[in-house]
Amino acid sequence: MMQLSEIGGHLTARTGIDDLMEDLFKALHSGDAGLCQLNGGSPAVIPEVTELWRRSMGELVRNGKFDVLVGHYAHPGGDPAFIRALVCFLNERCGWNLTPENVAITQGGQMACFTLFNMLAGPCPDGAVREILFPLCPDYVGYQSQSLCGGVMFRGIRPGIRMLDGHTFKYVIDFDRLDIRPETAAVCMSRPTNPTGNVVTDEELGLLREMTSRAGVPLMIDNAYGPPLPNICFVPVTPAWDENMILTMSLSKIGLPGTRTGIVIARPEIIRAVVSMVTTSSLCPNNLGQALVTPYLEDGTLERVCRETLTPFYRGRAEFALSLLPKLFGESIPWRVHKSEGAMFLWLWFEGLPITCQELYERCKSRGCFVNPGHHFFFALPEEGEPWPHRHECIRISFTQTEELLRKGLSIVADEVRKAYSRS
Amino acid sequence: MMQLSEIGGHLTARTGIDDLMEDLFKALHSGDAGLCQLNGGSPAVIPEVTELWRRSMGELVRNGKFDVLVGHYAHPGGDPAFIRALVCFLNERCGWNLTPENVAITQGGQMACFTLFNMLAGPCPDGAVREILFPLCPDYVGYQSQSLCGGVMFRGIRPGIRMLDGHTFKYVIDFDRLDIRPETAAVCMSRPTNPTGNVVTDEELGLLREMTSRAGVPLMIDNAYGPPLPNICFVPVTPAWDENMILTMSLSKIGLPGTRTGIVIARPEIIRAVVSMVTTSSLCPNNLGQALVTPYLEDGTLERVCRETLTPFYRGRAEFALSLLPKLFGESIPWRVHKSEGAMFLWLWFEGLPITCQELYERCKSRGCFVNPGHHFFFALPEEGEPWPHRHECIRISFTQTEELLRKGLSIVADEVRKAYSRS
Repeated sequence: MMQLSEIGGHLTARTGIDDLMEDLFKALHSGDAGLCQLNGGSPAVIPEVTELWRRSMGELVRNGKFDVLVGHYAHPGGDPAFIRALVCFLNERCGWNLTPENVAITQGGQMACFTLFNMLAGPCPDGAVREILFPLCPDYVGYQSQSLCGGVMFRGIRPGIRMLDGHTFKYVIDFDRLDIRPETAAVCMSRPTNPTGNVVTDEELGLLREMTSRAGVPLMIDNAYGPPLPNICFVPVTPAWDENMILTMSLSKIGLPGTRTGIVIARPEIIRAVVSMVTTSSLCPNNLGQALVTPYLEDGTLERVCRETLTPFYRGRAEFALSLLPKLFGESIPWRVHKSEGAMFLWLWFEGLPITCQELYERCKSRGCFVNPGHHFFFALPEEGEPWPHRHECIRISFTQTEELLRKGLSIVADEVRKAYSRS
Repeated sequence: MMQLSEIGGHLTARTGIDDLMEDLFKALHSGDAGLCQLNGGSPAVIPEVTELWRRSMGELVRNGKFDVLVGHYAHPGGDPAFIRALVCFLNERCGWNLTPENVAITQGGQMACFTLFNMLAGPCPDGAVREILFPLCPDYVGYQSQSLCGGVMFRGIRPGIRMLDGHTFKYVIDFDRLDIRPETAAVCMSRPTNPTGNVVTDEELGLLREMTSRAGVPLMIDNAYGPPLPNICFVPVTPAWDENMILTMSLSKIGLPGTRTGIVIARPEIIRAVVSMVTTSSLCPNNLGQALVTPYLEDGTLERVCRETLTPFYRGRAEFALSLLPKLFGESIPWRVHKSEGAMFLWLWFEGLPITCQELYERCKSRGCFVNPGHHFFFALPEEGEPWPHRHECIRISFTQTEELLRKGLSIVADEVRKAYSRS
């Protein structure tokens, strides 16, 4: 039998993200066009966007840059041309004052978080065990198993719930519960939030910035869906960065998940540590995604396409998905949806659901409809303490699929939810 | 000031591989064609090989597969089409009996080793701290800082030195010193060996397989340069694999380092653990390298090009580099070179060198010639014990550069070595 190290045990523990990736891939390659993949974070295939990357690659092959891209090791810190273009774009667009020393490239946004979490938290030379604090739980399930010292590295704060109308709610940061402790290594959240589509307000963010800055603890924002790129936001959001913040970005949501390109924006000492970790673990990032994007960053095409095509596309899908809910779920069951402010998901909450969301996920899956059970996203909340049934009453629905599949999938969900309530 | 975790401290410790990557990149982008980059593991640019990848990518863009490759997350375990083609090729070529369950894809060969080392060794649930044992030191410098629990994870065995003629030697495994202990998690080596160009004989390998199998410890072979692909071997070598072995491979040496594609061949339980770690740390590997290679694996082109072009090219370079040595170094100084049996390097040893190889490296660098000081490659040998000046008397020379740069660079080395001896 194989003997695993402690780290091996932590990293191979079966968690939500494994199930998600497996469901995703099985559905993609099943060849069954009738499957409703309302799970997963795969972006939609938007022809105007896909066309950009195809054209860009064609040009790289023609002009010979392709040969250099695949035939040489990249700089461990990322492609200098891409970084220059990115810095220039961000400074102009957001009024920041970045230099190339503020940027590192990783093998995807997931790897960026993995690197940062383990670089900052866990057992420290002074004997303390430091934690990553999530000020608003639920948050992205992919963080769950990333701790190299086991689950103890994450602590989440239960959010407040604000009802906006009979069926719409919004999570808000409960600042009364939010205690940054001496052992807090960083405060982290995704904005827009995966899974809920919440966008933490500029005011909430301002408070967080004050609190973390006062405590001397970095504030880490996973900006995979945020402004200025890809900017999948349906409410006004101000991009924010300062020397106390660590911003992670990704090329996945502009249609390049297959290139595995993540970006870290932080002060130079953090960037140097990230680059060193990239070198050690994988020599250098791959550079194809960066090269595909560079010309369109430089000439403004990418921002225009996001503004005119990408953001409206997802906003349209969100509105369409929301418009289906009243008719499908009706008034006989207590269905609620998180206010859709960004990202690619609806977050549905069924108060008092007589079965767990895991059971609901399985029932839907058996009918060809994949959703994400919500309890995985509460990974950072301690299980002990006052019981909170809420964490087993929610599911995440991706709205990147076609309108037809969305309608079909949501009908299955509504059907199973109704059955569950009526049989209790 | 930034506070790093213990793991952050380990992974950001400045080591040989950081210097190497930095030198490599600076030289590549300096625009100074006169620099002699005799360091680093970048493969040569061989037009017949480059042409393959350009043609392959052109076809992927034309037939629409490119859209799927960049626009979707890949399977965490790798692209099924590539894995099928690889399994088929390896079974046919090597007479193995692999199934797709024996293969995982990682973000480069470096990442494969990083994942395997930390999955198997370090602190274990039973309280033991397990080690990776290198039966023949020196070995690849890139392993050095990969231990998530600090350097304690690696232990190396000092090799025997066999003189083959007045200037040629070969390291051999010292089986008398080779003690597989209860705390040994795996035995690991590169074959052909980076840095020396040594190919551990089939007989030595057979003994290692016996010993590890008897001890129930996996034998890990880093096959980045080995058979059947890319097969940069100048002596006959038999590819070997069994259920007790873990073979890592890479697409880097067939001219695709920029794609970051590593391969692990092992028994299914190890593969499942690797895939789980890939999912956790980076969701999935990028899949462009795999897609570029698949058609040429299937139709036999890749093997033919390796046999007819790639292997002869490196063999020719090795012979050319070796042919320069007698005239450049002469008979007045005790220069020795490791028998060149494979990979892309010459390993030079100057017995009784009055300066350290680090000093020699710096003197050469100041004259525009980059080499690798040898002491980094002895990272797994404990510093304590009988002193061994040998570890400060060697340098690694890459022979992938043009003949002109090789001649120029080696002249600088010879000049500095002679100066060092004459001034002592």
